[in-house]
Amino acid sequence: MVQNYVRRGARGTAVVGAGLAGVTAARTLADHGLDVVVFEKSRGPGGRMARRSYGAHQFDFGAQYFTVRDPRTRERLPRWIRDGVVAEWPLRLASLRLDGQRPQGLSGLELLQPSEPRFVATPGMTALCKHVANGLELRRRRRVVGLDRTDAGWMVISEATTNGEHSTDEMRVDGPFQHLVLALPAEQAAQLLDLAPDLRSHAAAVCHQPCWAVMLGVAEPLDLPFDGAFVDAGPLRWVARDSSKPGRPSAESWVLHAGPEWSSAHFDDDPADVCRALIETFEHVAGRSTGDPGRFRDKDATELAAGRPPVAAHRWRYSMADDPLDGGSLWDEQLRLGLCGDWCAGSRVEGAFLSGLSIATAILTAVRRSDAP
Amino acid sequence: MVQNYVRRGARGTAVVGAGLAGVTAARTLADHGLDVVVFEKSRGPGGRMARRSYGAHQFDFGAQYFTVRDPRTRERLPRWIRDGVVAEWPLRLASLRLDGQRPQGLSGLELLQPSEPRFVATPGMTALCKHVANGLELRRRRRVVGLDRTDAGWMVISEATTNGEHSTDEMRVDGPFQHLVLALPAEQAAQLLDLAPDLRSHAAAVCHQPCWAVMLGVAEPLDLPFDGAFVDAGPLRWVARDSSKPGRPSAESWVLHAGPEWSSAHFDDDPADVCRALIETFEHVAGRSTGDPGRFRDKDATELAAGRPPVAAHRWRYSMADDPLDGGSLWDEQLRLGLCGDWCAGSRVEGAFLSGLSIATAILTAVRRSDAP
Repeated sequence: MVQNYVRRGARGTAVVGAGLAGVTAARTLADHGLDVVVFEKSRGPGGRMARRSYGAHQFDFGAQYFTVRDPRTRERLPRWIRDGVVAEWPLRLASLRLDGQRPQGLSGLELLQPSEPRFVATPGMTALCKHVANGLELRRRRRVVGLDRTDAGWMVISEATTNGEHSTDEMRVDGPFQHLVLALPAEQAAQLLDLAPDLRSHAAAVCHQPCWAVMLGVAEPLDLPFDGAFVDAGPLRWVARDSSKPGRPSAESWVLHAGPEWSSAHFDDDPADVCRALIETFEHVAGRSTGDPGRFRDKDATELAAGRPPVAAHRWRYSMADDPLDGGSLWDEQLRLGLCGDWCAGSRVEGAFLSGLSIATAILTAVRRSDAP
Repeated sequence: MVQNYVRRGARGTAVVGAGLAGVTAARTLADHGLDVVVFEKSRGPGGRMARRSYGAHQFDFGAQYFTVRDPRTRERLPRWIRDGVVAEWPLRLASLRLDGQRPQGLSGLELLQPSEPRFVATPGMTALCKHVANGLELRRRRRVVGLDRTDAGWMVISEATTNGEHSTDEMRVDGPFQHLVLALPAEQAAQLLDLAPDLRSHAAAVCHQPCWAVMLGVAEPLDLPFDGAFVDAGPLRWVARDSSKPGRPSAESWVLHAGPEWSSAHFDDDPADVCRALIETFEHVAGRSTGDPGRFRDKDATELAAGRPPVAAHRWRYSMADDPLDGGSLWDEQLRLGLCGDWCAGSRVEGAFLSGLSIATAILTAVRRSDAP
């Protein structure tokens, strides 16, 4: 099964996962002159900073935006904006509720006074991860399925993936690595932590909620007085007019997110049923038809009919951590093994970034200590 | 079992349920000179327009406020305000979310621009029902358990209740009544509708969600920048500083409402556990301690310790209709049987009022028709 067992001498650091935490950790280490290899199961970096395009329609179907509260992020922000990778999203924000009423049109709507600016990456949320990952050694389409610890360091066992599916006939082992960082959802990290029971117990205490996301293109603009809304109606908890974000194509595109309880209860539902449930609720609270209702009644909602606006669903198995940690990251000095991710830092986009910085700082400190006379 | 079988000749109308819909229907019929008897299982009118006091603390633990959209309500409003039974609640309204973040203090807070004024009854929500019911013939503490239809009209079979519990040794039958109105949650109405399969099928199609409500007194004001907030965090969907409503005692009193999904999943939980879950979430999102956490750890949370601010929970089995009707009311001309309630009119407080008007209008029309030469 194992076709290649590559042993090229102890390199610096392996980072597993190219979401924002992983690429930030890797970028920071690389900027300090360390060798880094990033393993990513998908075709590219991004993780939940995810974008998809169907024809003229484009959707951020995972992370929606980010807010900036920490000085370390505030320091980066002007550069990201200057580089054209981040822009403020001056959205008209609202709250949409049934509020014990059957809404007629938009009677459940109240406008919000945003307490802080919202930022997005451009032209899609993925762009920030790509920007940070630029120039890194990235092993794409490789899912890490096991770790081994030798005297020389960490060995990373991975399988090739095709469209996210594994194919065990392309397994390989890379290493040894002096340091290892798992930048994965807590549950996925825990599965790899047989050799680190302490870290595993920390990761096992965190539980991510699922989230069903629907991408809905509309042919005619809906003429709604908001670009993003917190929703409390049936399955829905959030809707956004993605086409209102800066740098997006103009074809009107909405992302609808279900709440964690509903997403759990309907985790195994057919995507077409999920599309129907979320879109019908959206039409109900918004008091608008979004187009031909038949178009999401296909068996596979991701099968998009040519010439019709797209409708598709994506199931996030690990969306937001229910009870995230707030220490930034977890680092085992003896094992030279670290964990990072938004779940280590408040479950926010900014938290993912800060968590990547945090684990990189831990490694750089360890390196400096071992370099000391 | 049946101690009294009262037969005093066909009277006008029996109304079952003295919530806002029932008392409005009865009041309207009485104002037009019809004989009306109202049956109510509790000690007085109100239904979900419910108020409770513990010492200096007072809580509207059911319906929170109402909005006015229909000309018929708009016409009544100035009179209610002049009579001192209704006042505007100029609340500072907010949205509180975890929003994928572990809040530090109030970082998940955004202020709302209310789209319409909120009104409350004074000195408590119940007052509006009491005001409307004033002077009506009200059979308190009687739960209607069956209906019978004779040639002379409707017979109403009821049991005496003590603290809401039935005692079958005090059953009685009242009637015959020319018209009958069930102003009950759809599920409770359906149970009485064996003789009216058409109406029963309409009622059976409506499903009310449960709602756990927690009443929380605090000794020291919490210094929060809002008086009411839509919440999307764990079990919580709504919190209100009831003591900020007009005409209330000043002792700071909060009502916390759980969402329908959580309330369903935790329907049979111990009230102390419900108090703990809702209060801990409230403290988390508000970034405030609400007092001695031990005080809601009693086995029975409604057992209130002397000298400590109150903490109590109430379980609404029928809170809001999931998919309410919007026709106003349901009337079977042949059976002279009607159904009303907020679930017939959009599931709002105003809907309950309009539904009571609607069924009264149907009866008055039927009476006029039968009086016609």
